[in-house]
Amino acid sequence: MALPQSWLAPPPAPSAEHAALAAARQQVLTKPPGSLGQLEQLAITLAALNGTDRPTVDPVRMVVFAGDHGVCAEGVSAFPQEVTAQMVANFAGGGAAISVMARELGASLEVVNLGTVGEVPMLPGVIHQIIGPSTANMAETPALGPGQVAAALTSGDQAAERSANAGCRLFIGGDMGIGNTTSAAALACALLGLPPEKLVGPGTGLDSQGVARKTRVVSKALARHGDDRNALSVLTSLGGFEIAALTGAILGCAARKIPVLVDGFIVSAAALVAVKQQPGARDWLMFAHRSAEPGHDAVLEALDATPLLDLGMRLGEGSGAAVALPLLRAACALHNNMASFADAGVSGKSGE
Amino acid sequence: MALPQSWLAPPPAPSAEHAALAAARQQVLTKPPGSLGQLEQLAITLAALNGTDRPTVDPVRMVVFAGDHGVCAEGVSAFPQEVTAQMVANFAGGGAAISVMARELGASLEVVNLGTVGEVPMLPGVIHQIIGPSTANMAETPALGPGQVAAALTSGDQAAERSANAGCRLFIGGDMGIGNTTSAAALACALLGLPPEKLVGPGTGLDSQGVARKTRVVSKALARHGDDRNALSVLTSLGGFEIAALTGAILGCAARKIPVLVDGFIVSAAALVAVKQQPGARDWLMFAHRSAEPGHDAVLEALDATPLLDLGMRLGEGSGAAVALPLLRAACALHNNMASFADAGVSGKSGE
Repeated sequence: MALPQSWLAPPPAPSAEHAALAAARQQVLTKPPGSLGQLEQLAITLAALNGTDRPTVDPVRMVVFAGDHGVCAEGVSAFPQEVTAQMVANFAGGGAAISVMARELGASLEVVNLGTVGEVPMLPGVIHQIIGPSTANMAETPALGPGQVAAALTSGDQAAERSANAGCRLFIGGDMGIGNTTSAAALACALLGLPPEKLVGPGTGLDSQGVARKTRVVSKALARHGDDRNALSVLTSLGGFEIAALTGAILGCAARKIPVLVDGFIVSAAALVAVKQQPGARDWLMFAHRSAEPGHDAVLEALDATPLLDLGMRLGEGSGAAVALPLLRAACALHNNMASFADAGVSGKSGE
Repeated sequence: MALPQSWLAPPPAPSAEHAALAAARQQVLTKPPGSLGQLEQLAITLAALNGTDRPTVDPVRMVVFAGDHGVCAEGVSAFPQEVTAQMVANFAGGGAAISVMARELGASLEVVNLGTVGEVPMLPGVIHQIIGPSTANMAETPALGPGQVAAALTSGDQAAERSANAGCRLFIGGDMGIGNTTSAAALACALLGLPPEKLVGPGTGLDSQGVARKTRVVSKALARHGDDRNALSVLTSLGGFEIAALTGAILGCAARKIPVLVDGFIVSAAALVAVKQQPGARDWLMFAHRSAEPGHDAVLEALDATPLLDLGMRLGEGSGAAVALPLLRAACALHNNMASFADAGVSGKSGE
């Protein structure tokens, strides 16, 4: 399978003209300049991405990618591997956090099953694009085969294409995969040249012994992988089906001018791979929250990202991005609908 | 005019029984325990305040209290005093930040005009409870007369009563008053025994010379006031009409079991007075955001408050609380609507 075009070609640039128009508008709205804090820059960023001075994020598309990890054989997760498939059914059944948030926020939700060890029945709302029952154990061998990386990237790119065809103005990607904080930590270590001790954390709830074991597993995988920082090599060697698909979705959205609201540690690791491959993709990303997973800080710093929320969340599924979505809607509503000083007959700063 | 009953009597306590039920429910929802971070404690807190294990914040009432400040004669604000009245018209016209947010979030919005130097015409949605054209200059004399404090507290208590009668489950108070960061800083200094240098900031946009002047004005007011830390004395001496009304509204809500989502520096100063008078009122408060106004940190610390957002906002009007409201809704939706491990057939942590 060929790599998608969005992997190979740089994405378009945002509109500097509309950023300037939006910044000028922020100065004349009935508030002290700067008093809406980060919401002002958010509106300006969205204007540049939308190519309009009246930005919107609606309709919103949420896509959760699920896949299992061979590295679970090393005992790196507090939860059994069967949970990945069980959670796919829970997404479809409406009982998972991201399902609840999609309903609460009026967003469309897709679930893409890329391959789980447990069986997933045919379920409404679940797209089956099975690459294999799980990745290989990255501590012993490359996690994905070359054809598997291309398949996963293509699955993500296709999700972006479906979002574009549906007219979506914002994309939220989510992850489900027992063991995927191990893969994300390894990816970030390899791309950033950082030691596992800095990036490995408890994930869904390991104790300190478990974290020490997980750190040794990541060290072993990194030693096997070596110093190659090429994005495709790193993703093949250390990735997961769902992480590679998220990378593909991010690049696919950037290529199609769809802004992406990045969730926590897993999606940020996927974004790191995407930006390593296409640095221009960074422009299309906004960052929702700072995860409680300790490795997230280093990934955010490498991406020069200041997330909107810091609520100690560490669930995945795209749930942190969903919780932050109303902040983007607020930024747009305030930017688009507030009166100007002139319109409202309100005096400006003294002496101006 | 007599002081309202909510000033004189302790508020009821939240339901520890429902807090325990909600905490137990959080442990069985399909997520790693604790992975929703602060949203879990928010749901538990709201359950205790609602007296139910399935909390809600809707319907939401927002009330903006407006009033002018005599201390503006000392040149403490970057904006002219006429803006207070002009903004009351802007609230009613739908062009202010809080008006936009109320529409965006489906909350009812009331504006209570307690007295402005500029003329406010009769406007739909504005309740006129005029106490005077402005407070007196606190640098020279007590800002409010004793009857005026009672009138302002009563206005706030009545807003709480209207909210209760409308069946509202959450109250957001907002402020409008050119000069009110000066009053709020003075109140907090007097109640906490802190120096003005620690609490006075740029407000709507003073330069460093302006901040120095404002600090001297607060010092002068505090010297005149003396060491009396009685809540009523401090409010009379250093308060504003809208700040006293916010204090009354907070106590009125606590008395009627309506949770309050506290906005930024001004509303937090009002909350500090309320909690000084009735310590039990603290239980009914949640804190929306950390303001960019530097004095807010000390007030939050004194109230043992960890706000949800830190976006550099400093607008007032209740706008920061409005922006945070969807986080409370998310906490309730997740708590109420997620499936349990048993319901969804999802395995729990390994070995449990």
